[in-house]
Amino acid sequence: MLDTTIQRIGPLDRAAMNEAQRRHDSLAIPRGSLGMLHELGVRLAGITGTPLPEMKRLAVITMAGDHGVTAQGVSCFPSEVTCQMVRNFLLGGAAINVLTRHVGARLTVVDMGVAGQLPESSQSENGKTCFLSRRIADGTQDISLGPAMSIEHARRALETGVRVFEEELELGLNALGTGDMGIGNTTPSSAIAAVLLKRDPVDLVNRGAGLDDYALRRKVEVVKRALDVNAPDPDNPLDVLAKVGGYEIGGIAGLVLAACAHRVPVVVDGFISTSAALLASRFHPHVKDYLFSGHRSHVLGHDLMLSSLGLRPLVDLDMRLGEGTGAAFGLSILSAASRIGAEILTFEQAAVTNPSEERAY
Amino acid sequence: MLDTTIQRIGPLDRAAMNEAQRRHDSLAIPRGSLGMLHELGVRLAGITGTPLPEMKRLAVITMAGDHGVTAQGVSCFPSEVTCQMVRNFLLGGAAINVLTRHVGARLTVVDMGVAGQLPESSQSENGKTCFLSRRIADGTQDISLGPAMSIEHARRALETGVRVFEEELELGLNALGTGDMGIGNTTPSSAIAAVLLKRDPVDLVNRGAGLDDYALRRKVEVVKRALDVNAPDPDNPLDVLAKVGGYEIGGIAGLVLAACAHRVPVVVDGFISTSAALLASRFHPHVKDYLFSGHRSHVLGHDLMLSSLGLRPLVDLDMRLGEGTGAAFGLSILSAASRIGAEILTFEQAAVTNPSEERAY
Repeated sequence: MLDTTIQRIGPLDRAAMNEAQRRHDSLAIPRGSLGMLHELGVRLAGITGTPLPEMKRLAVITMAGDHGVTAQGVSCFPSEVTCQMVRNFLLGGAAINVLTRHVGARLTVVDMGVAGQLPESSQSENGKTCFLSRRIADGTQDISLGPAMSIEHARRALETGVRVFEEELELGLNALGTGDMGIGNTTPSSAIAAVLLKRDPVDLVNRGAGLDDYALRRKVEVVKRALDVNAPDPDNPLDVLAKVGGYEIGGIAGLVLAACAHRVPVVVDGFISTSAALLASRFHPHVKDYLFSGHRSHVLGHDLMLSSLGLRPLVDLDMRLGEGTGAAFGLSILSAASRIGAEILTFEQAAVTNPSEERAY
Repeated sequence: MLDTTIQRIGPLDRAAMNEAQRRHDSLAIPRGSLGMLHELGVRLAGITGTPLPEMKRLAVITMAGDHGVTAQGVSCFPSEVTCQMVRNFLLGGAAINVLTRHVGARLTVVDMGVAGQLPESSQSENGKTCFLSRRIADGTQDISLGPAMSIEHARRALETGVRVFEEELELGLNALGTGDMGIGNTTPSSAIAAVLLKRDPVDLVNRGAGLDDYALRRKVEVVKRALDVNAPDPDNPLDVLAKVGGYEIGGIAGLVLAACAHRVPVVVDGFISTSAALLASRFHPHVKDYLFSGHRSHVLGHDLMLSSLGLRPLVDLDMRLGEGTGAAFGLSILSAASRIGAEILTFEQAAVTNPSEERAY
């Protein structure tokens, strides 16, 4: 099922992109003066296969999981906060609730592997937040001692992501934003990025929610140990996920693969989501074409992943929260880009003199 | 009347800012992890004098005017396009219509000094776009030959801006975005910035809507001539406006001064609006405190003005259109920042463990 999804991923639709470019070039504005909005609009055409696709039905899917490696003191928050925060999402009181409301996106929260009591799958907060209980295990094993999960669980995490995406698609979905919640998850994300980018962990490990210098050095050592102990194969993304990943990270990678297979644009959130997108990109070379970076996260290492994926973040507000908060802003800009192409009148429609036409005489 | 407005401008409300900061610090997220959104939220408190002000009623005011200096070939668009574009605004088919709709702001277009036939003041496009006919003259005089306008007209432009703001405020207004339309207006804006920042025009003159190298060099010469011929007094912003300004630029400066006087935050658009805000900032030292930069314009010289005003742009999408398009994005982020402070639950409200509290034991 994962393999079928991956096999469906194809290249961008060049004909749709050319038609979109022609439309953007005819808008009654100085050519190209809306900068990145044009590029976004054209790529949306290539992704969807439609010159002027609508980007109205937006969703953020925030995946949650716990991490055995928190036993090594890699986070300044205790593990139980993952579960508490998921409950906060269901109350509608977290940052991602506020920002999805702000940009007009719906929110789906998925328990991929939280250690703690959570309710059954449900709709809440006037139908705006959906909760899916898809728990694979009560958190990962400690990656500094051995693999995070079995290969079977890694595959299940990816396939759960694919299925969650497909359920979401049935509700109507033009663009997806990804989000994460998991105390300790910058540690597996750093490990994944170090393996896949072949960098020293010191270039990728960051303060997460706010570690001091001492704890930061310890976290670097923990990631190094995780890589030594597990020796993940950089050419095998499933192996990397199983050995140094996380359930929510696998789930996000599954969402990304499914979105690509269904030609839906994906706005990737910050550090954790980007590590998941990087992982997904190693399953198929065309994955990158479907990705947008919601924002530049204010942590070390995010830029390295972005440049490897060839992504330029859409906003840069020094945020470093996760949950999908950066993706929410990105979705709004993507939606603006689609409206630009569809709703601005052309020189001809607006009866505005087009100097480039005049020059042609 | 202008003087009374300027005299009303006061400092930020420190007590409201402190209370806002306390609230932001208690939100159930790693402290400061929403980056600039916290700073924005705190400054909004200082501006409005309310710890958690609502930013729901948003408006962009786009001011239009023509420029005699277009006779010198400083733009690749003919002058008549100003008038055509104002008509396009009233049709609802321009970029600023699309982006104000996108972010949920209303749009008011003001004829400050367009050369051409335009309708009477009106409401259009289902009440979303308001048009105000406040024409002071049929465009400015050619600044490369003499002053743009008389001192009386410069004062009238500023006062018209103040009045337009006050009418808008009566409709209900939490935050204002500024915008401009005027073929040729990067030339007076460059001249204003060169005078006020005491820089060589070559550091500020840009390609505008798309000049080639030859036309760019000519534009630099035109700005130099305007400064030589008029010798504007850098310590007298009214004199600078009269000699090398524009009606829409004066109008925007008036909007800014009135917004400060009424403690309403202002999101400044790109190059032209920023030159107007820079001009406004020379009337009173506290003006800067009320300003936000909507976006980084993709033209030479904008950064110099921003750093002089101490502003960091909220988005950076390589846009260089004007009309208020960058301000629209900025308004949306400002509104998000206000919601962050008001709507995210605190650690206590959300029953989430706060590690910084635990450490205090």
